[in-house]
Amino acid sequence: MSDPALVLDEAAQDLLFREAHTASAFSPEPVSDEQLRAVYDLVKYGPTAFNQTPLRIVLVRSAEARERLVAHMADGNKAKTLAAPLTAILAADYEFHEELPRLVPHFPGLKDAFFGAREVREGSAALNAALQMGYLIVGIRAAGLAAGPMTGYDAAGIDKEFFPEGDHSVISVINIGRPGDEAYKPRAPRLDYDEVVTTV
Amino acid sequence: MSDPALVLDEAAQDLLFREAHTASAFSPEPVSDEQLRAVYDLVKYGPTAFNQTPLRIVLVRSAEARERLVAHMADGNKAKTLAAPLTAILAADYEFHEELPRLVPHFPGLKDAFFGAREVREGSAALNAALQMGYLIVGIRAAGLAAGPMTGYDAAGIDKEFFPEGDHSVISVINIGRPGDEAYKPRAPRLDYDEVVTTV
Repeated sequence: MSDPALVLDEAAQDLLFREAHTASAFSPEPVSDEQLRAVYDLVKYGPTAFNQTPLRIVLVRSAEARERLVAHMADGNKAKTLAAPLTAILAADYEFHEELPRLVPHFPGLKDAFFGAREVREGSAALNAALQMGYLIVGIRAAGLAAGPMTGYDAAGIDKEFFPEGDHSVISVINIGRPGDEAYKPRAPRLDYDEVVTTV
Repeated sequence: MSDPALVLDEAAQDLLFREAHTASAFSPEPVSDEQLRAVYDLVKYGPTAFNQTPLRIVLVRSAEARERLVAHMADGNKAKTLAAPLTAILAADYEFHEELPRLVPHFPGLKDAFFGAREVREGSAALNAALQMGYLIVGIRAAGLAAGPMTGYDAAGIDKEFFPEGDHSVISVINIGRPGDEAYKPRAPRLDYDEVVTTV
């Protein structure tokens, strides 16, 4: 069902959106660091406010780290997280402003002008990390993988366990891999264009 | 510079990420409702937590509405917003829970179980609307258009002007169109993979 208003080819539309689904079961095939690097090196170009790029990613690979993570997951997310080939903790870095002199060389005073206050940074980092999470999910699919993003966990517990310095906060935990048998639930309904978009 | 770890074809990689840029100047060519509808009907499938899909979009088309919007934009954003073929206000709907019985039919009690408190809805709506903004920017590019997302504005002023009922909050204002002359600034640096991704 191609739309002539789109330039993106139909196979890419299907890969990234139309045929893509959140996965809750995965094949045992591993996900390599090279695959993740390819995903990151594609989606790192997605824009954020002032190029602040506050998203940070922890790949949970060791059995010990996986156990530490699963202890904080909601019951309904424990088994699938234990079984996934790779699980990534996505976090907003509240100290992203330290990188701004390098990331925004055309605005030398940005760090102090706008982001001196921790409270401002927390709000900005959470929103922009979520924006980057959108790009990342698209990128995971661009690598032929499926993503299973979750928000059912004890966020304070994960923050304390994986970011004890107190300067990051989890925004999602994503299982990543090739979809396994019965990976997908039926697609839930979406709102229609006219319910979401108004014109003034 | 194609990466064999990606399945997405190189032209699509370029269109969506590698060659795409935030635009600050546009050609006068109009952006139709049909184009926006095609974008929405592609990216509406992007996942959100519990399928809550809290993003709402106001297309600013009339001269009167454009003036009302520009009055609340930061000085540096006024001229380009006045000149853009189309400007969209992106907002998080804090009353998204009213749609959950229809959007999440497999979890009938979700609305009251998790989203009874306005404060919880505000945080969830902001994060998930930002996630959807990521998909939307990808979708705008999929239509061969350029996006110019901005956060330099008086958010409270826009909320009061365009959402007087108090149940939506702006997360970004995006100019949309075909890029014009000198649309793009040089690409700002990005963080390297090893600065963003750690493995445990």
